[in-house]
Amino acid sequence: MYGEIIAIGDELLSGKVINTTSSFAARKLVESGYEIKRISIIGDNPKDIKHSLLTAINRSKFVIITGGLGPTSDDITNEVVADALGLKLVLNQDIFNRIIEVEKRLGLKHSKMREKLAWLPEGAQVLNPKGSAAGYLLIYQDIPLFFLPGVPEQLKDHMINQVLPRLNKLIATRLVVKQHLFRTFGLQETDINEMFFDLERSSELLTIGYYPNFPEVHVTITVKGQDKSLVEEVFDNGCKEIKKILGDAIIAEGKDTLESVLGDLLIKKDAQLSVAESCTGGLIAKRITSVSGASNWFDRSVVTYSNKAKEEILGVSTKTLEKYGAVSKQCCYEMVSTSAFKTQYALAVTGIAGPTGGSKEKPVGTVFIGLKTPEKTVVERFWFPGSRIKVQQLTAETALDWLRRHLLNGSYIPGYRPAQ
Amino acid sequence: MYGEIIAIGDELLSGKVINTTSSFAARKLVESGYEIKRISIIGDNPKDIKHSLLTAINRSKFVIITGGLGPTSDDITNEVVADALGLKLVLNQDIFNRIIEVEKRLGLKHSKMREKLAWLPEGAQVLNPKGSAAGYLLIYQDIPLFFLPGVPEQLKDHMINQVLPRLNKLIATRLVVKQHLFRTFGLQETDINEMFFDLERSSELLTIGYYPNFPEVHVTITVKGQDKSLVEEVFDNGCKEIKKILGDAIIAEGKDTLESVLGDLLIKKDAQLSVAESCTGGLIAKRITSVSGASNWFDRSVVTYSNKAKEEILGVSTKTLEKYGAVSKQCCYEMVSTSAFKTQYALAVTGIAGPTGGSKEKPVGTVFIGLKTPEKTVVERFWFPGSRIKVQQLTAETALDWLRRHLLNGSYIPGYRPAQ
Repeated sequence: MYGEIIAIGDELLSGKVINTTSSFAARKLVESGYEIKRISIIGDNPKDIKHSLLTAINRSKFVIITGGLGPTSDDITNEVVADALGLKLVLNQDIFNRIIEVEKRLGLKHSKMREKLAWLPEGAQVLNPKGSAAGYLLIYQDIPLFFLPGVPEQLKDHMINQVLPRLNKLIATRLVVKQHLFRTFGLQETDINEMFFDLERSSELLTIGYYPNFPEVHVTITVKGQDKSLVEEVFDNGCKEIKKILGDAIIAEGKDTLESVLGDLLIKKDAQLSVAESCTGGLIAKRITSVSGASNWFDRSVVTYSNKAKEEILGVSTKTLEKYGAVSKQCCYEMVSTSAFKTQYALAVTGIAGPTGGSKEKPVGTVFIGLKTPEKTVVERFWFPGSRIKVQQLTAETALDWLRRHLLNGSYIPGYRPAQ
Repeated sequence: MYGEIIAIGDELLSGKVINTTSSFAARKLVESGYEIKRISIIGDNPKDIKHSLLTAINRSKFVIITGGLGPTSDDITNEVVADALGLKLVLNQDIFNRIIEVEKRLGLKHSKMREKLAWLPEGAQVLNPKGSAAGYLLIYQDIPLFFLPGVPEQLKDHMINQVLPRLNKLIATRLVVKQHLFRTFGLQETDINEMFFDLERSSELLTIGYYPNFPEVHVTITVKGQDKSLVEEVFDNGCKEIKKILGDAIIAEGKDTLESVLGDLLIKKDAQLSVAESCTGGLIAKRITSVSGASNWFDRSVVTYSNKAKEEILGVSTKTLEKYGAVSKQCCYEMVSTSAFKTQYALAVTGIAGPTGGSKEKPVGTVFIGLKTPEKTVVERFWFPGSRIKVQQLTAETALDWLRRHLLNGSYIPGYRPAQ
């Protein structure tokens, strides 16, 4: 059931373009029960393409080849494939007609470069004769070879609608795969790894993956096997165990995010949120408004970068700013409890994201976060390590997660608090 | 001069994590005059790691191997490398001491898992003995093998500060490479491609690259050759030509970004900016505050997501909201000219990012952008195609770019304006 992926393109090999297409193809194949043994990136070079293709055919049950199908001079996949496999290039009448039609419609002269798209290795089955990209399937010595466009959107469409249905008929996987994602915040990758020592060894079918996705760590459970009911049992037990072990370090599951979970909790309470941001500079608002429908629970945010803005918009007193400074418990308290916010819940953050602005008493990374609820208003001091962007990300995540935890269990203790 | 890169990790092979580290490493190597023939991704599998390493040593002048150096159970690179090359694993005292020190500081028990980090194949030269990641160089049969951490930030640091200086001593490239990046906004990739038809053919040494980086298109010029003065001449002429062709579609060059360029222009005028955001939900503020020192030119931003917030914070009149709605020229005008903003310059955006909320008169993607300068206040209507996130990105980019163009040439005509 092992397959492999070959991505062709100088732009991938020189690192100018990140190879997202192979990742997408691999993910879809793995989710469907196939395994990928190798992903190779090679340049627009006939010798390398030929060698990689023949090696892959030799050791794999199927091969996905992406890129090099376009009309420009560096697109050489079709010629090289024909040469490598000893096949003729044949004119595909459907594609040829489509090219002529497009040329007519746009009033273009016939171009040999465009016509190249219609010359495919003999035996090639065009995957989507009505589409604009000429991906095709070639079965060579019983090995299915899928040649796909390298353009991300076209590749995605081909993978889902053309490749997987055909591959399923050619190579039934018989493997049942169940997978789930847990997003966590506040634990280190190694801590999590140690927590799962026993679970990882509890079944041959089960794999736990750990993926730092700053400032979160994502944990996946994958259960694979031939027996559907066994796979489901191991999967259900595994998920239960993971939830027990990680507890409220799990901020969201599956397609949910911290901000979407927070929104659902606020909607349940029929409550709304306002945010005052200083050092995060809009990051909290931006994350919140990435959720469609956020207007149901998000009222407003102010990014009061200057002291004047804190005074004028939020009513922070000049005295507080003079006596304690903008990065202080007092200022944060006044920010979050401002009369400018009429919502039941509010968050405020003020801190030193760096790289400059730190002092002995308040080093770079010092951040105050304030939380207002219908019951009370609290401010906590934090210290976050890392670059400007990391401090901003940790601040935003902590503020949103603090409110999430409060809504869940009523506690006023923030989850994440590195040594000060 | 050919090298290759091997990235190890099940999470890369299953497509869960996109392999950005190999792209980064490849880009840095290419910029330094080396060529990369192949990038391979393989899983945490001893047989595959061994086979890939030995094949690479056989055909390449140097090899970069990333991943599998961590403390967790799936990190097996060191053992497999020692086995593949017939070397012993030896305790590295420096790394061991550092682990003990960290364990003491954090009050942790000694862990064999962490200690694993200190056991390296004999002959390994630790690249950065003072750092926390144990990347190392092993010279095997005269081929430099660099083993690097897979964590993106650690890899980047190692590539720039450790690998390239050492590789330069081991394998001098003799190739002179000059490269420059132009960030553009408002032109399509294919349009740009056509504009450079002649320039691309003007010299064998010169390559132009096109990289869509939504909503921008990045254009790079790379000039490579053995003759330094010829390379410089072709490079200088190429850059001049690119600037002439692209004109003010170039929003930033090199390491600059649209927001950093905008900041520099405002600082020159000793002016400050305020922003009122509705549909972008904080994205404009977030982009601005990603620039260190933004507090010199950025005063405040309000994210007025609800109508109430628009009234209360910005003083938009109830009448305007009732008569014209929040997404209207009138509302945008009142937002940008609010008395809550005391700065010389202000931007306001209000629109329908979607996926819901559109109407026949104001379809999804309809956005009003307002620009206030010391001379006058103008509002323009735009229509941006695409998903919620794309509409938000196009809105933020257009607003920032509009102000940039105004500061540069005094015009009130926004650069980018898709058909309405």
